[in-house]
Amino acid sequence: MSSLRSLYASDGGHIGGNMDVDYVIHYKVSVDKAEAAAGFTQLIEALTRVGLATEVRYGDNDSLLVFVKVASEKHLTNHIYRERVQDWLYGVRITTPNKDLAKEFADQPVTEAERLRTVYLLITKPKSEGGAGIAPKVGLWKDVESIFPLHNHAFNRQWIKQWSTKYFLDDEDLDRIRDKFGESVAFYFAFMQSYFAFLIFPAAFGFGAWLILGQYSWFYSIVSSLWSIIFFEWWKKKEVDLAVQWGVRGVSRIQRPRLQFKWEHEAVDPVTGEAVKVYPPMKRLQTQLLQIPFAFGCLAILGALYVFCFSVEIFLTEIYNGPFKAYLTFTPTIILTGLLPTLSTILSGFAEKLTDMENYETTDNHHAALVRKFAFVYMPFGNLLVPYLDIFKMTAEQFSSDESVTTEGFQINPDRLKKQMIYFTVTAQIVNFALEAVVPYVKRKAFKEVQKVQSKGKSPAASDVPEEHEFLERVRHEAQLDIYDVTVDYREMVVQFGYLSLFSAVWPLTPLCFLINNWVELRSDAMKIAVSSKRPIPWRDDSIGPWLDALGFLTWFGSLVSSAIVYLFSGDSMGPGGDPSNIATSGLLLSILLSEHVYLAAQFVVRYALKQMDSPGLQKEKAERFAIRKQVLEESLGPEAIEKPLPPTPQVGEKITRESLEEQARQISIHGGGTPEKLFWLRQQGMDETIQIGQRLISQSKAAKN
Amino acid sequence: MSSLRSLYASDGGHIGGNMDVDYVIHYKVSVDKAEAAAGFTQLIEALTRVGLATEVRYGDNDSLLVFVKVASEKHLTNHIYRERVQDWLYGVRITTPNKDLAKEFADQPVTEAERLRTVYLLITKPKSEGGAGIAPKVGLWKDVESIFPLHNHAFNRQWIKQWSTKYFLDDEDLDRIRDKFGESVAFYFAFMQSYFAFLIFPAAFGFGAWLILGQYSWFYSIVSSLWSIIFFEWWKKKEVDLAVQWGVRGVSRIQRPRLQFKWEHEAVDPVTGEAVKVYPPMKRLQTQLLQIPFAFGCLAILGALYVFCFSVEIFLTEIYNGPFKAYLTFTPTIILTGLLPTLSTILSGFAEKLTDMENYETTDNHHAALVRKFAFVYMPFGNLLVPYLDIFKMTAEQFSSDESVTTEGFQINPDRLKKQMIYFTVTAQIVNFALEAVVPYVKRKAFKEVQKVQSKGKSPAASDVPEEHEFLERVRHEAQLDIYDVTVDYREMVVQFGYLSLFSAVWPLTPLCFLINNWVELRSDAMKIAVSSKRPIPWRDDSIGPWLDALGFLTWFGSLVSSAIVYLFSGDSMGPGGDPSNIATSGLLLSILLSEHVYLAAQFVVRYALKQMDSPGLQKEKAERFAIRKQVLEESLGPEAIEKPLPPTPQVGEKITRESLEEQARQISIHGGGTPEKLFWLRQQGMDETIQIGQRLISQSKAAKN
Repeated sequence: MSSLRSLYASDGGHIGGNMDVDYVIHYKVSVDKAEAAAGFTQLIEALTRVGLATEVRYGDNDSLLVFVKVASEKHLTNHIYRERVQDWLYGVRITTPNKDLAKEFADQPVTEAERLRTVYLLITKPKSEGGAGIAPKVGLWKDVESIFPLHNHAFNRQWIKQWSTKYFLDDEDLDRIRDKFGESVAFYFAFMQSYFAFLIFPAAFGFGAWLILGQYSWFYSIVSSLWSIIFFEWWKKKEVDLAVQWGVRGVSRIQRPRLQFKWEHEAVDPVTGEAVKVYPPMKRLQTQLLQIPFAFGCLAILGALYVFCFSVEIFLTEIYNGPFKAYLTFTPTIILTGLLPTLSTILSGFAEKLTDMENYETTDNHHAALVRKFAFVYMPFGNLLVPYLDIFKMTAEQFSSDESVTTEGFQINPDRLKKQMIYFTVTAQIVNFALEAVVPYVKRKAFKEVQKVQSKGKSPAASDVPEEHEFLERVRHEAQLDIYDVTVDYREMVVQFGYLSLFSAVWPLTPLCFLINNWVELRSDAMKIAVSSKRPIPWRDDSIGPWLDALGFLTWFGSLVSSAIVYLFSGDSMGPGGDPSNIATSGLLLSILLSEHVYLAAQFVVRYALKQMDSPGLQKEKAERFAIRKQVLEESLGPEAIEKPLPPTPQVGEKITRESLEEQARQISIHGGGTPEKLFWLRQQGMDETIQIGQRLISQSKAAKN
Repeated sequence: MSSLRSLYASDGGHIGGNMDVDYVIHYKVSVDKAEAAAGFTQLIEALTRVGLATEVRYGDNDSLLVFVKVASEKHLTNHIYRERVQDWLYGVRITTPNKDLAKEFADQPVTEAERLRTVYLLITKPKSEGGAGIAPKVGLWKDVESIFPLHNHAFNRQWIKQWSTKYFLDDEDLDRIRDKFGESVAFYFAFMQSYFAFLIFPAAFGFGAWLILGQYSWFYSIVSSLWSIIFFEWWKKKEVDLAVQWGVRGVSRIQRPRLQFKWEHEAVDPVTGEAVKVYPPMKRLQTQLLQIPFAFGCLAILGALYVFCFSVEIFLTEIYNGPFKAYLTFTPTIILTGLLPTLSTILSGFAEKLTDMENYETTDNHHAALVRKFAFVYMPFGNLLVPYLDIFKMTAEQFSSDESVTTEGFQINPDRLKKQMIYFTVTAQIVNFALEAVVPYVKRKAFKEVQKVQSKGKSPAASDVPEEHEFLERVRHEAQLDIYDVTVDYREMVVQFGYLSLFSAVWPLTPLCFLINNWVELRSDAMKIAVSSKRPIPWRDDSIGPWLDALGFLTWFGSLVSSAIVYLFSGDSMGPGGDPSNIATSGLLLSILLSEHVYLAAQFVVRYALKQMDSPGLQKEKAERFAIRKQVLEESLGPEAIEKPLPPTPQVGEKITRESLEEQARQISIHGGGTPEKLFWLRQQGMDETIQIGQRLISQSKAAKN
């Protein structure tokens, strides 16, 4: 790969800077040139109106590259200041932004991620909120192909070099990711890293179990479930901790409007008086109902694929007796390997379309709805179907043969499940890796070749000014890259976690395979960002979001499924005597019921235990609170308020003399102020009198026996 | 009751004010008078040191009443200001406290509850945090019997009058409770009110089901479970809403230290540098393990009681044939009614002692631990034991009779469960009411009589100044009253909710009985606070706390138990053919498993649906945020920053003339500043040039086919 080579270039290969460009807008020239020109004019005008400077250059033959940078730093800081005030109001930052802007930005300089995020918002936010309102590929802006920041190649090279030579990532590595690509991407790597570290235990334990206990072991299954619970609960805590350390805790409360959102009418917000865009929720609900046929569709399509592969397998093993039988038995696996990723991609695309139709207002809602739909696409049908496939086989056999074959009752073939599992753990992961790393590269190469042929040698690069040529070529290359979508990577890991939690009892080497896979995965994901994707917009995030729910669900579901599998396949189900089918049912139900509640109890205990532990993030938060409190109190109550919370005021009253008391009584009678309250509190003036009288009352009391 | 009568006095019965007293400290004179005098001196000194004025009067024969009020309003406001800063830091209040104290308190005057709470904290907080460190009945302060504010009798009278004549409480009623008794008590009444209103539906539906469906109906059970889920989820939302409206959202994050906490050593907080009191967590864990024998003890004791009552019942119905048989059959109920509350009280006391031993640092942790223990004391053993009792009976019969009686297989008597249920729904609730309302009154009366006899006619009131006499008598009366503990009332309601959720399928009239009971309960609880308790300290709270978890648990457990009960008793379990005991088991397990997961699904749906609804509290929060944001931005960026988020800056550059461009080029060459970046951005100066060049590029592009 061309840029991969450059990453490893031994001389460090001179790579120029990014010409101070903040963003590049890739603008496709549409068929109608007049329309294209008008659209382009609008684009530049919109950008200029929000204080952005622009330069235009040739892209490829039918596109332009618009370079954007902030024209006035003051406007940028104004915008960033607004964001900071917003953050403070939502409790994301604890310190109030300084009302003196110069001081604020001297204390907390603008980071690269903050700058890029703000400029992106400036370009994309609706006009009513002070942005240019440019949404790629939507409505008026359908010719805007993409809006992307430029890679920092020097950083990328160092990054990939470093990661490929170390086993574990540390906090600093994650911090660097966060500074360049935002918390959203950093959270993915943090999760991957934690998951990888946690996998070491089940990998070792699983290897031991494989040697000693064999498959379908109760003990292995319980330990594995417990591990899932601990990992899940630990990550929940870790996540909060990271969010605090990165200063983004609670950032998910600030909802980001979705650019593609289409509203039906505008209404006035009763609270703020601002115009709000409204899409009737009932209409959305109607679209949401389409999820039900979608779920059944997934079930039917994926189920059909498995049944088909299964039928082929039966045909080849039981009926077919021709040549190449030994090789042909691989046919089902080949069909599965070829068709499953394709079907998944198609169904995922369908899920995305469906979610688009649901037309959510915020990116978070959109994202959560999408993740829910993935559950149906990536459900491990293969493994869940196995017992039913065996029933299917039995029935088929009974139909095909006239004589009653000695079908040994209802029996499930444990080997098929294992084969299925190995398929997923090894074959599918390798295929997946190939799809991720190789396909985009081939696609890009092919695309370039096609372009070269189409342009018949006359490249747009010919008109470049020589000193810009190298830079422009680089940008043209980046414009062709895919947009990095962290969702895809999360999905892969969560699906993997699902297999681990549900089926690892089938083949205890599973975690070991995953451990190895993930070491590679972590690096190949980094490579994917650095080499074969556009630089991601550095979004903030305070959690792995909807994936957390997915993990929780899988942990729970894992306790059910793995106990059922162990019960069905370990051989315990065929106890001595009694009607086996009946005992199997109630035993199965009991083991599911038991394991589910053991799961709930274990979760409770683990959660409680983890709660007792302190965390650096929360300590940091506490320290910040303490510092601000001190500062505010000092400013309002004076510095001594802090050291001695309340200065002692021995209320001995003024020196009480007979004269002063008489004077006071005289004053009261003169002014007629002798309210019962005043008189009540005048009887004992000062501490000493109260003590005196109290002691007299005590000595007169009857309680004491002496 | 004496003060009850005064509440209803038609002339309004003159009741004086509270003499500006903030708190009364009831000080018992111990046996050793010298010790008592020394302790008293220390008490007054400690109070004076934190800026409190004191007056002392006779209590009863062996106690003193120390009246406390704030000596300097400035000190009080300083303290309240600190609390407000704390609140703001923890996100409880959104607005920053004004740094000018006078303005802050003019904008947000001190409420009665705020004042009382602050003064109480002033009296009880440890010295290191600026309080007097007085903890009733603990260590040095063992002679301090209680610290309590005085009732506002005018308010109480109006309150009770109003509530006894209306069916529903509205928000204003709750707000008034909150102003006088704090959010902690107000939350209880809000919960009661919501629960009461929600009960109307199952009461009506249950009545219908009782007429048409009979007991053990699947349909009733499902509707009832669904209702539980909706109520629980709705309340969770309502709770947040109330917390926002009352300005206490997140207040539970500010942990209140427990006065009774005993530390082993002091350590320095690594973050704040303050001294922190430490109690080794391992030591606490050891004490916590005592919960296990405690749980088994409860099980054994309460189980034994039920088995005993059951044995008596069998004896009376099956064996006994003597006189009064008709009357004697009530004996088990009488035993249960007499012993169960007593046992519960004893075990609760034990739970409290155990929790005290666990020595928590904060009141919240203490409270949560206590509530967890109540689960064992108040578990509905009676109902859960019923099936086992029947097995016990069968076994007993087989032993007692030599001939084989026609035991119709294993059959559970559904009537016993119903009887049990009616016992709890009707008898126990009435007994409970009597215990709550009558017993304290009788106790107090008896106590007073004893005192009168002991003091031989010479009352301490004889030495009162006449104009204070009435007031002092009132305070003496209040000093004798119990401390109101909202936990007891919550417990009662949560236990009731548990019966409803678990067993209402047994007797569908249950919700109707509870509805009636709760109308009375709500008023009798109000009466309890106003008449037979000391005025509660107005604590804040943002939730019903650990009871919420208890409700959630009961809703879930209810789905399990009620499906099991309906399955066992509805007669479906004895299906046609097959071995009944076996089918019963697997059918039972299946119905539990099914209902549990239907429960989970329903919860998910209800939660999602409720999330879509807007709530007034959150709207209020949003409005506040918006207002502050506007204000801060105005102060920092100037007023125009709000109306037009970013003033348009058409960046046409300075007028571009050939001369100016040449001048610029000259400047660059002179200063040598021709960096690639500068040159890149100089090619197109201003919007118009970019547009011009872009249009030229478009017209040259090959994309267009025309």
